[in-house]
Amino acid sequence: MKRLIVDMDGVLADIYSQLIDRDAQNTGWRKSLTEVSGMPESVAFPKLTDYLHVPGFFREAPVVPESQEVLRELNARYEVFVVSSATEFPLSLAEKQAWLQEHFPFITWQQLVLCGSKRIVKGDIMIDDHFKNLDGFEGRTLLFAQPHNQGADDRGHERVDSWRQISTLLH
Amino acid sequence: MKRLIVDMDGVLADIYSQLIDRDAQNTGWRKSLTEVSGMPESVAFPKLTDYLHVPGFFREAPVVPESQEVLRELNARYEVFVVSSATEFPLSLAEKQAWLQEHFPFITWQQLVLCGSKRIVKGDIMIDDHFKNLDGFEGRTLLFAQPHNQGADDRGHERVDSWRQISTLLH
Repeated sequence: MKRLIVDMDGVLADIYSQLIDRDAQNTGWRKSLTEVSGMPESVAFPKLTDYLHVPGFFREAPVVPESQEVLRELNARYEVFVVSSATEFPLSLAEKQAWLQEHFPFITWQQLVLCGSKRIVKGDIMIDDHFKNLDGFEGRTLLFAQPHNQGADDRGHERVDSWRQISTLLH
Repeated sequence: MKRLIVDMDGVLADIYSQLIDRDAQNTGWRKSLTEVSGMPESVAFPKLTDYLHVPGFFREAPVVPESQEVLRELNARYEVFVVSSATEFPLSLAEKQAWLQEHFPFITWQQLVLCGSKRIVKGDIMIDDHFKNLDGFEGRTLLFAQPHNQGADDRGHERVDSWRQISTLLH
């Protein structure tokens, strides 16, 4: 059974919706996804780090469309691990586990990894929206489209725009 | 630079002292290390899972002797990751990170991994007190002596009794 490593923020959890909401509350100006396309998150949202440190930021994130149904299917055919960068924001640790338990109850605690660097994980396929995680991975790499990676050279990764597309690719 | 993977419970954190204390509070009978030698933790302490779920259990654990000095030295010559099974006990996530920050401040958030299964990590050397973690590891494996692994066949792992001994072996 092949091992599939799935990122959380920007792949399962819709972090942009959260960022745009928090930013609108903070600045009084609601940015559109088009407006922040092609910009690193820290440029699009200068107060990014502040937002991430607020309790509830990760716990209340919406779910990326179709990720629940598709990951449930894949979980039956792959050895799935959800691997999330979390130790930079200690508050996020419990929030992320509770969020995953609520929205993806079929992912057990044995399948969750909370870390600071993904260089340490090994597997066959990785789905992530950040180049820094995909670039050093030894297996097949799927780049999940998010505004911050739009317009960039894909660096040899396979770009995917939706979970429906992932379902087709990994069937 | 070789990657060194270091377990937390039973290797950096003195979990047996905590278990014996909690057990004594609970039963009125203080067990000795000799008495529980060679027994799985869940047999030595039938209420093990209850103790692990109590807030503070991980946060207040004493530090294993000499682990701070030796790990600080090794951290300069190895790519160190502290990898801890934690997701089974969600309360432990923040406690473990705070504990590590207090006692091993030279280990950054980038070097911490909190997980449920260690099968997913790759590296050159692993120090752990549990066979289940060492058995599937591809690199060199050091079995840190703890009462629960006393008397067992070492299954090809190198048994170490102290951090001083680790320091000698990895120099």
